[in-house]
Amino acid sequence: MKQYIKSIVEINNNRKSRCFAFFIQALILISIVTFSVETIPNLEPKTKLILRAIEWFSVVVFTIEYFLRIYVADNKRKFIFSFFGVIDLLAILPFYLSFGVDLRSLRTLRFLRLFRILKLVRYNRALNHFTRAIKSAKEEILLFIFITLILIYFSAVGIYYFESEAQPEHFASIFDSLWWAIITLTTVGYGDVYPITVGGKVFTFFILMIGLGIVAIPTGIISSALTKSVDPHDEEEV
Amino acid sequence: MKQYIKSIVEINNNRKSRCFAFFIQALILISIVTFSVETIPNLEPKTKLILRAIEWFSVVVFTIEYFLRIYVADNKRKFIFSFFGVIDLLAILPFYLSFGVDLRSLRTLRFLRLFRILKLVRYNRALNHFTRAIKSAKEEILLFIFITLILIYFSAVGIYYFESEAQPEHFASIFDSLWWAIITLTTVGYGDVYPITVGGKVFTFFILMIGLGIVAIPTGIISSALTKSVDPHDEEEV
Amino acid sequence: MKQYIKSIVEINNNRKSRCFAFFIQALILISIVTFSVETIPNLEPKTKLILRAIEWFSVVVFTIEYFLRIYVADNKRKFIFSFFGVIDLLAILPFYLSFGVDLRSLRTLRFLRLFRILKLVRYNRALNHFTRAIKSAKEEILLFIFITLILIYFSAVGIYYFESEAQPEHFASIFDSLWWAIITLTTVGYGDVYPITVGGKVFTFFILMIGLGIVAIPTGIISSALTKSVDPHDEEEV
Amino acid sequence: MKQYIKSIVEINNNRKSRCFAFFIQALILISIVTFSVETIPNLEPKTKLILRAIEWFSVVVFTIEYFLRIYVADNKRKFIFSFFGVIDLLAILPFYLSFGVDLRSLRTLRFLRLFRILKLVRYNRALNHFTRAIKSAKEEILLFIFITLILIYFSAVGIYYFESEAQPEHFASIFDSLWWAIITLTTVGYGDVYPITVGGKVFTFFILMIGLGIVAIPTGIISSALTKSVDPHDEEEV
Repeated sequence: MKQYIKSIVEINNNRKSRCFAFFIQALILISIVTFSVETIPNLEPKTKLILRAIEWFSVVVFTIEYFLRIYVADNKRKFIFSFFGVIDLLAILPFYLSFGVDLRSLRTLRFLRLFRILKLVRYNRALNHFTRAIKSAKEEILLFIFITLILIYFSAVGIYYFESEAQPEHFASIFDSLWWAIITLTTVGYGDVYPITVGGKVFTFFILMIGLGIVAIPTGIISSALTKSVDPHDEEEV
Repeated sequence: MKQYIKSIVEINNNRKSRCFAFFIQALILISIVTFSVETIPNLEPKTKLILRAIEWFSVVVFTIEYFLRIYVADNKRKFIFSFFGVIDLLAILPFYLSFGVDLRSLRTLRFLRLFRILKLVRYNRALNHFTRAIKSAKEEILLFIFITLILIYFSAVGIYYFESEAQPEHFASIFDSLWWAIITLTTVGYGDVYPITVGGKVFTFFILMIGLGIVAIPTGIISSALTKSVDPHDEEEV
Repeated sequence: MKQYIKSIVEINNNRKSRCFAFFIQALILISIVTFSVETIPNLEPKTKLILRAIEWFSVVVFTIEYFLRIYVADNKRKFIFSFFGVIDLLAILPFYLSFGVDLRSLRTLRFLRLFRILKLVRYNRALNHFTRAIKSAKEEILLFIFITLILIYFSAVGIYYFESEAQPEHFASIFDSLWWAIITLTTVGYGDVYPITVGGKVFTFFILMIGLGIVAIPTGIISSALTKSVDPHDEEEV
Repeated sequence: MKQYIKSIVEINNNRKSRCFAFFIQALILISIVTFSVETIPNLEPKTKLILRAIEWFSVVVFTIEYFLRIYVADNKRKFIFSFFGVIDLLAILPFYLSFGVDLRSLRTLRFLRLFRILKLVRYNRALNHFTRAIKSAKEEILLFIFITLILIYFSAVGIYYFESEAQPEHFASIFDSLWWAIITLTTVGYGDVYPITVGGKVFTFFILMIGLGIVAIPTGIISSALTKSVDPHDEEEV
């Protein structure tokens, strides 16, 4: 009996387990859509009722699935404290805890479970190649993050001295300037805050020239790491 | 007779077929320009008349070309249901179907036919090299698209919790937040919606730091794939 | 005599020719600065006088330099119609032609002459490496430009159908929509035009997902070309 | 005695020196936070008092550290005029010089000292790899900066001619246009200035098509340099 359930719940390659996995994944997607729809203001009472029904149904199914997974696990403790075990619990817990509205957003974490499919089916190799490349460039990526943070802080201090007098409402403190620095250096540029003094504009020019270089570096690191970490399978194929 | 038409219509390397191809391509471009001009509001009646005349002329020519291509095709059924066969039909059909104004936009698909020239003349090698590189990185590109979609959804949920109370008109539901997430993570940053709360700004900072990395990854994948997939011709040349 | 002038004007490696080259380059920079300053509105009469004097002086020097270069050229006709010969002429001609105010902007082309220094002194190798890399990727870059143009046109047509009714003032015709398409796909995002309908926003999402990929491709091409085109000097050094 | 202090102050690998380094680094971070908090307008007197106390304490500690470093340095003159020696002095000097409010921003330079940790602990290899890659691409990077500056200037001149009449308030002179050119070519696009004439929009299109290429080049250079400069350690690991 336990072996039979295990063959279905833990994904093997037989037909029933695939149906089960597909059903759970579909329910995850439906659950995410209903979660999103629920946030729309002024829903009709009828719509709300349907959403609540789907909610109830999906939580019941996820709860059964969770206990089945514990039941079939060889090492129950290990599963409960594993990454996916915790996510499975977080996906249902908010519903039971006082039917809390705020905590329910944790449900979205369940979306992470979709990775499971990827891991099993095809993307195993791609992920491995990726992980290896990023691991080999770990130090350089950390270095880049550190440099970026320093650059952002310096930009914020600089622009604060140039603009705080001219625009006290937008550059009230260094914390406000940090917002400008982030939005500018990432080239998002919402346009809610921008320098208006000559000094601030010249400063922005230099910061952007350096910033473009900074943006270019992680791309270089990752593509360099990907090129170097030769995938044995690729070698054969090409 | 059929062989003679075939030598002209299906592009070989003789002079007549090149003239024919050039004539059709020029007509495609003219057709696209007139299509664009027609959308300008408050055109003079005289201009409208000229545009309609060009429209009629080009459709008649494209119709003749379509039937000639069917006539000379060795496997008529295959041509009709081929990619370019369907596009050729879509380019003229809207005109005949009740002279439908809305469907006429399908004409723009005819622009795709310009690829035919590329394929035949020079870019064959470049396209091959490209296709091979992208095919070898297919799994990684799909993985990236999946990760991007998850990141966009998480960003939308996050910003919804931070901003929906402060700006109910811009972050009314997760669907509205999704618009913000897309525009921010692609660094377009129109400036129509942006966070104003401290929480929302800090959240945006972290999302952007991760988002920049995500943007760096596909570039790395493609340039890595291009570098690895050695083009035998390049090898000789360099 | 001619040999002596030639040794100064055509850059060799002696001291006098370096002084001459430096003097001309400094004058080019001064000329560009005065050109920029002149556009500032409401200048004082005194400032205008000084700017005009610098203007006169630099044009006289550039004219003498131009005739000296013709004088010392082995093949005079070849120099006059060469790239830098034409630029040298364009830099002084506007001044003499009716002292035309509008044409004077051609002077800025003289800025290109600064490349001459680069070519001679140090950047020879870098430029060679570069030119070779870009030449080897020429077909792929042309292909990318073609694909980008098609993508921009399709985006414009698409957004026109979604937004023209909701925002007739911003998306009046496909030409107006083209402006939106360019600003969005390059991720500049000024915020002067953006979709407001649900259809337009969903369409923008898909266009941007593809657009990000398109932006990633030329980077991949160029860095791939740079990596492949091995510079013999680099090989030895590294 | 001197040897004992030296073993603590100059980072070796014993426990006390690590504690000392950690304490200084923590104080640097606290000092930066208080510096940022001080800029918030309308602070309560009590908060100001606390901030001033932290300020006094950190300056006293940094002063003691500075003199200890001079004391233990083998070559005192060399340390005082070294990069970190100057930064250490700049971090405390503004406080003593008339308790100058403006100069205190130099304190932020002290943040640079955090690099010291990186250099010593782990990132040595990553930094070396990096420095070598950037050094080998130095000429190409300088060339790119030069080309970018020319492109920005040309864009500014071009847009000035197209837009100065239509928008004299935003494109008053070439210096104003330069601001537009920088913000557009870096794809920040705040939206404070943008072309409104047809000519200006078409010009922007061409400038952006070239600008995207320019942005792609340094990425290509750096990733190419990183790929070429083989790190002997990486070779062994992969």
